[in-house]
Amino acid sequence: METAEEARAYVRQAIRRMEGYVPGLQPAPGEKLVKLNTNENPYPPSPAVLEALHSAAESSVRLYPSPDAAPLREQAARLYGLSPSQVLCGNGSDEILSMLMKTFVGEGEPIAYFQPSYSLYPVLAQIGAARTRDVPLPRVARASEMADLPVPSVNAKVFLLTTPNSPYGVVHPTVWIGRLLEKFHGIVVADEAYVDFAEESALPLLAGSPRLVVVRSLSKAYSLAGLRAGLAFAHPDLIQEMMKVKDSYNVNRLAQLAACAALKEEEYFQAMRARVIATRQRFSAALASREFTVLPSGANFVFAVPPRGLAAGTLYEELLRRGFLVRWWKTGIVSDGLRISIGTDAEMDALAAAIVEVSRGR
Amino acid sequence: METAEEARAYVRQAIRRMEGYVPGLQPAPGEKLVKLNTNENPYPPSPAVLEALHSAAESSVRLYPSPDAAPLREQAARLYGLSPSQVLCGNGSDEILSMLMKTFVGEGEPIAYFQPSYSLYPVLAQIGAARTRDVPLPRVARASEMADLPVPSVNAKVFLLTTPNSPYGVVHPTVWIGRLLEKFHGIVVADEAYVDFAEESALPLLAGSPRLVVVRSLSKAYSLAGLRAGLAFAHPDLIQEMMKVKDSYNVNRLAQLAACAALKEEEYFQAMRARVIATRQRFSAALASREFTVLPSGANFVFAVPPRGLAAGTLYEELLRRGFLVRWWKTGIVSDGLRISIGTDAEMDALAAAIVEVSRGR
Repeated sequence: METAEEARAYVRQAIRRMEGYVPGLQPAPGEKLVKLNTNENPYPPSPAVLEALHSAAESSVRLYPSPDAAPLREQAARLYGLSPSQVLCGNGSDEILSMLMKTFVGEGEPIAYFQPSYSLYPVLAQIGAARTRDVPLPRVARASEMADLPVPSVNAKVFLLTTPNSPYGVVHPTVWIGRLLEKFHGIVVADEAYVDFAEESALPLLAGSPRLVVVRSLSKAYSLAGLRAGLAFAHPDLIQEMMKVKDSYNVNRLAQLAACAALKEEEYFQAMRARVIATRQRFSAALASREFTVLPSGANFVFAVPPRGLAAGTLYEELLRRGFLVRWWKTGIVSDGLRISIGTDAEMDALAAAIVEVSRGR
Repeated sequence: METAEEARAYVRQAIRRMEGYVPGLQPAPGEKLVKLNTNENPYPPSPAVLEALHSAAESSVRLYPSPDAAPLREQAARLYGLSPSQVLCGNGSDEILSMLMKTFVGEGEPIAYFQPSYSLYPVLAQIGAARTRDVPLPRVARASEMADLPVPSVNAKVFLLTTPNSPYGVVHPTVWIGRLLEKFHGIVVADEAYVDFAEESALPLLAGSPRLVVVRSLSKAYSLAGLRAGLAFAHPDLIQEMMKVKDSYNVNRLAQLAACAALKEEEYFQAMRARVIATRQRFSAALASREFTVLPSGANFVFAVPPRGLAAGTLYEELLRRGFLVRWWKTGIVSDGLRISIGTDAEMDALAAAIVEVSRGR
C-alpha cells in the first residue's frame, strides 16, 4: 500500500514548508474565562439582528444565499455613501484579504506591510508563494505623532495597512494614507477591521484613489464575529475583478441578513461604540497610573507594556491563572507587551484589580 | 487624477482575462418561480436544526466560531466511521475545492476532470493560473455501463471527479474509482456533493488510499444550502496540509451548529432522501414516456434531452414563461438538454404537465 508520505509529495512545496496561522485561543464551551484575546465585542448585536436571524432560520436556510450578497451591498453602499458597485462582501474580512491576494498577487510577487501589523499577512504570502517586504513600525507615545511617520519607500504589488494597527492600536491618519497612496506604486489596502472605534478612516480618499481598497469587518463593532461578514470598498473596476475570484456563495444567508439588519441600527451601533471607547479610556488610564506604557488606541483593544520588573509573559500566565485570557505573542518585537481586548466595565475593573495584584507580588 | 485603467493594471493577468463563474440564477425575493435550477432540497432541514439555530442566535453570535469546527469534525467522524483528524470543514464544498487548489496546484500545474462535470473547475484553474486537461465523458443509457467506462490516461496534479456527475447525474462506481486511483498518479478528488442520493461512494476506498480526498456538501441532502457547510475526508497528513490554507474562522458559528444537528438526525435524513429518490424515479419515468432521453441519475436532479423537434433552449424559455426555472447551458456539449432539480411531488407533477403542454405545441 502507498504511504501518506508519497501522497504528501503532491502538496505544493510552499505549503509543505509553512507552519500555518495560529488564531487566538478560542476556549472550549464551558471554560470559564473572561475572554479578552480576540477583540470580540462584549455586547450582543442589536435586538433587530436577533429578530432577523430568528425569522430567517424559520424560512429559508434550504436555499442558496444571494451570490453577490446584493441586499447587503446596497445597505452598505447607502450607509457609507457609495454605489453598490463599489462594495464586495466576504466571509469575514479574512476572506476579503485572501481574495485580494488572489486578485493582485501572483507567485513570486511581493506584498508589503508594517511590522508589527496583522500577523495573517505573511501567512497569506506563504500560501500564495508571494514574497514579503516588511517595514518597521516605530511605537509612538501620542496619537498625533502618527501623522509624522515617514512614508515607507518600498516596491510591492500591494501594501497591506492595518489601521488601526494591530496589536498597537494606533491609527494611520487619513492625510498620511493619502501620502502613502502618492508615494507607493501599487494597490493600497486599508485594513480597517477596528476603524469603527477610531476617529479617522481611509474612506474619504476612495473617490480620488482607484488604487485604494478599504476593508471592513462586522465582527468587532457590530458584534457579529460568529457570523463572518466583511466588506471591501473600492473602484467598481477593481471590485469587478475581485468578484471573479470569489466563491459563488461565499456569504452565508443568515450572515447577510444579520449584517444588513446591523448596518441599519445606527443608534444602537453608536451607543455600543461609545461604551467601548469610554471603557478603553478608563482602562488605559488605570494601567498608565500603574506605570504601564499604554499605546494610544483607536481600536477596541489596547497594547500595554508592563513596567520594568514584570515580564509580559509572566503577567499573561498570572492573569490566565486568575481567569483572564488576553493575547501575548511569545516571540518577536511585540513580546514585551500584551494586547488586551476591551470588555465590559465590570470585566475591565476586575482585570485591572488582578493586574494590580500581580504587580504588587513582584 | 489616476484612472481606473491604471489601477486595473495591478490585477494579475490570469484574472483580468477571465470571465468569472456564473452561478445558477437566484430569483429575487418575491419572484414567484418554481426553482429547480440549483439542486436545492425542496424540504426544510429537520426541526432539530431549526431549534439549534434559534438557541444559538440568542447566545453567541458575538463570539468567533471554533477555528477548525471541532464539534462538527467530531460529529462527521462519528457518522462516517472516521477519525476527526481525517475531516476538514469548509464554507460550503466550493471553499473546499478552492482549498484543494491552494494546497496542491501551483501556477502552471495541470488539473484534470471530465467534460462535462462541475463547471467551476476550469474557473478555479483560471484563478490559480493552472492548466487544465479535460477528458470527454460519454453518455450512458444504463447506470451499469459506468463500470465499463475506460479509465482516463492523463497527467495532472489533481483529478477532480464529480460523482454523481453534474449535469448528467451518473454515478462513478466505487470499483471504477479504485481503478482511477491505480492508474492516475496524483490526488484524486471525489467531489460527492450529490452522493447522498446515490447508492455508491468513494468513501470505502479512503482507508487504503492516502491520495484520495472525498468532498461532501450539506447543501443538498441536508437542506442547508443557505448556511454553507461542506466537508472533506482524507488521510490526516493531507488534512493537516489543507488546514494551513484555510481562513482562520471559515465556517460560520450557526452553520457549524446547524450542520452538527443535521448530521445527528439520521432518521429525518433517510426519510427526505427516500422522498427525493422516489420523486426522481417517477419524474424520470414521466419524461421517458414522452420520448425524452433521461440519463440514469444518482443525484437530486436529472439531465433530460427533449425529443427531436423540441430544442432544449426553446423548452427552457417556455417553462420559464410558465413559472418553472430549470438549468440550461446555452453553449457547449450539454446545450441539447436541461438539468432539472427534483422538487416536491406536486412541483414535479406540475412541471411534467407543463412539459407535455409545450411538447404538444410543437
